[in-house]
Amino acid sequence: MRQAGRYMPEYQKIRAKHDFETMYKTPELACEITLQPVKRYGPDAAIIFSDIMVIADALGHNTRFVDGTGPVLDDPVRSAAQIEKMRPVDPYEDIAHTLKAITLAAGELPDLPLIGFAGAPFTLAKYMVDGKNLKTGRYIKSMLYDSPDLLRILLDKISDAVIKYAKAQSESGADLIQLFDSSAAALSESAFLEYALPYAEKVVNELKKAGIPVIYFALGLGPWLEYIPRIDADVVSLDWTISPARARNSIPRNIALQGNLDPAALYADPQRYEEHIDDMIMEMGKYKNYIVNLGHGILPDIPVENVEKFVDMIKQRSSRIYDRMK
Amino acid sequence: MRQAGRYMPEYQKIRAKHDFETMYKTPELACEITLQPVKRYGPDAAIIFSDIMVIADALGHNTRFVDGTGPVLDDPVRSAAQIEKMRPVDPYEDIAHTLKAITLAAGELPDLPLIGFAGAPFTLAKYMVDGKNLKTGRYIKSMLYDSPDLLRILLDKISDAVIKYAKAQSESGADLIQLFDSSAAALSESAFLEYALPYAEKVVNELKKAGIPVIYFALGLGPWLEYIPRIDADVVSLDWTISPARARNSIPRNIALQGNLDPAALYADPQRYEEHIDDMIMEMGKYKNYIVNLGHGILPDIPVENVEKFVDMIKQRSSRIYDRMK
Repeated sequence: MRQAGRYMPEYQKIRAKHDFETMYKTPELACEITLQPVKRYGPDAAIIFSDIMVIADALGHNTRFVDGTGPVLDDPVRSAAQIEKMRPVDPYEDIAHTLKAITLAAGELPDLPLIGFAGAPFTLAKYMVDGKNLKTGRYIKSMLYDSPDLLRILLDKISDAVIKYAKAQSESGADLIQLFDSSAAALSESAFLEYALPYAEKVVNELKKAGIPVIYFALGLGPWLEYIPRIDADVVSLDWTISPARARNSIPRNIALQGNLDPAALYADPQRYEEHIDDMIMEMGKYKNYIVNLGHGILPDIPVENVEKFVDMIKQRSSRIYDRMK
Repeated sequence: MRQAGRYMPEYQKIRAKHDFETMYKTPELACEITLQPVKRYGPDAAIIFSDIMVIADALGHNTRFVDGTGPVLDDPVRSAAQIEKMRPVDPYEDIAHTLKAITLAAGELPDLPLIGFAGAPFTLAKYMVDGKNLKTGRYIKSMLYDSPDLLRILLDKISDAVIKYAKAQSESGADLIQLFDSSAAALSESAFLEYALPYAEKVVNELKKAGIPVIYFALGLGPWLEYIPRIDADVVSLDWTISPARARNSIPRNIALQGNLDPAALYADPQRYEEHIDDMIMEMGKYKNYIVNLGHGILPDIPVENVEKFVDMIKQRSSRIYDRMK
C-alpha cells in the first residue's frame, strides 16, 4: 500500500519546496520519495511514488492537485466529442516521468521488489468524468444511467491506456503492478458487474499474458467478494472491513492476500491491539500466501512512531508465528 | 428515506429565511417541511424533519450546522470526565422541539404513517467523539483502539438516550422508528461486532418490547449482511450496493426490505433505466414484504422532476407487477 506521504517529516521537507505535481513529475524527486519509507522502515517491497491520474493527463485531460480537494480536471470528460478526440497513449512519451522514476528507483533497490501501479478503468473514468473526487458521482452516474454506451467507449480507451502504461512500468523496472479500484464501491452491484469488473479483468488478463504479476486492490468491495477471483490477480489486497477469516474463506488459497489493518488503528500504539494483529496474521496467513499490510494508504496525520512500531512488531511476530506453524 | 431537502424549491424558500438549526428546532417549521414532500409526491409514509444530532445536544454537547461541513460539536467528547458528566436524557425536556413537531405532523396526517428516527449508538458516538463527520475517524478510532472501555461507557449512555427518545417519539405520534447506522461501515468487522451491532440490537429490542415497529438502515453494511437479522427489526433498509436478489437471499422472508435504488440514478430520467427498476421491484418484492425506496437520502442537486417521475413510475408499476404476481 502507499508508504510515503505527509505523515513523514522527510517527505514534508521535500513538499515544503515543491508542489505535488512537480514531486511526481520529476523523476529524481519521485525516486527519492520512493526510497524514504524504504530507508525508515526496511519493508519487504517498495512502491513507486506517482499518481493514478497520469493516465488522464496522457489522454489529454490535464490534472491539477488542489490542497484539500485532491486531483481536479479543468476539462472533465462529459461529451462524445471529447472521448472521440482521445488518441491512443504512448506511455514512453506521455508518462515518461514515472517510467524514468521507476528505472532510477529500481537501480537504487537491486534486491527489493519495486511495485508499479495504475488506477483501474472505472476508478479513472469516475475521476475523469466527475472532474474531481465528487462524493455524489453526479456526472459519472448521469453518464452511466443516461448514456451507458458512451461510458463503455471511454472505459475501453482507458483500459487500453492502462494496459500499455502498466507494461511500460514493467519494462522500466517495476517487478509487479498494483491495480487500484478505489471508486468501484460507489456502484450498484449490477453496475459493478457491467462497468468495473470486466475492465479490471481485461487489464489484469493482458498483464498476466505478458508475465507481469498483479495485485488487485479491492477497496470497499466486501459485498462482492465472490466476484473478485474472476480477476486473475496473483494477490488480492483487502480493506479492513473484511475479517481475516472471511477473506480466507472467500478467496481461493492459490491467490495471495494482502492487508488489512484499519489504517486508523495506527492513531493508537500497536501494543494496545496486538492480539488483533496476531489474529490477522494467523488467519490471513493460514496458507502462507500472505502479505501483511494496512487495508488502505497511511492517513496523513498518523504518528510516524506508531508506523515504526507496527513494522517492527510485524517483523518479529510474523517470523515467530510462521516458526510455530511449521 | 429522507424526503425533504435542498433539491426542493419549497424547502429552499424556508431555508432562505432560517438556518438549519432553527428549521428543525421550531416545531411549526419542522412540521411544514415534513409535509412538503407529502404534498408534492403523495408517498405512502412521511418522515419527520429533524436531525440525528439532537441526542448529542441532549447529552450536553451542543451541535452547530456549518454549510458544507455539516454538524460540528464545539466540545467533542474525548475524556472520561466528559462522559462521566453526562446526565440521563429526558426527551420531553431536552428534545421537546422534535416531539412537538411529531405531534403537529401526526395531527396533519391522520391517514399516513409517520416515521420518527434516531441515529444508532455507534454512529452518534462517532460524531460526538470526532466532533464532525471526519473521514479518517481520528478521534473515535483512537478511543476504540486505545481506550475501548471508555467507548463502551459512552455507547451505553448514548443507547439509553436513544431508547428514551425513540419511545417518546412513538408516544408523541410517530407510528414507527427508523434507526440510522450511517457510520458503522467505517469499522473493521470485529469492531462492528463489538461496538456497533450489539448497541443497535439493544435499542431495537427495547423498542420492540414497547410494541414499536422499527426500520434499521444498514448503510454500507453489505459485507456483513448475515449479521443484520440479529437485530430484531421489522424492516431492513438497504443501500444500492446490494443487488435485490442478494438482499432477498440474505435477509429472511419475515423481515421486510426497504430500498434500494442508487440515489445518483435520479440524476437521469427514470425512463432511461426502467428495466433496472422493474428488476428491483420483482426481486425485492418477491415475498411481498417490500417498501420501494432509494438506497440513501435524496442528493442535494437532484432534479425534482426526476423524483416526481420516479414516484409516479413506482405507483404505476408496483400495482401492475403485484397484479401479475397474484
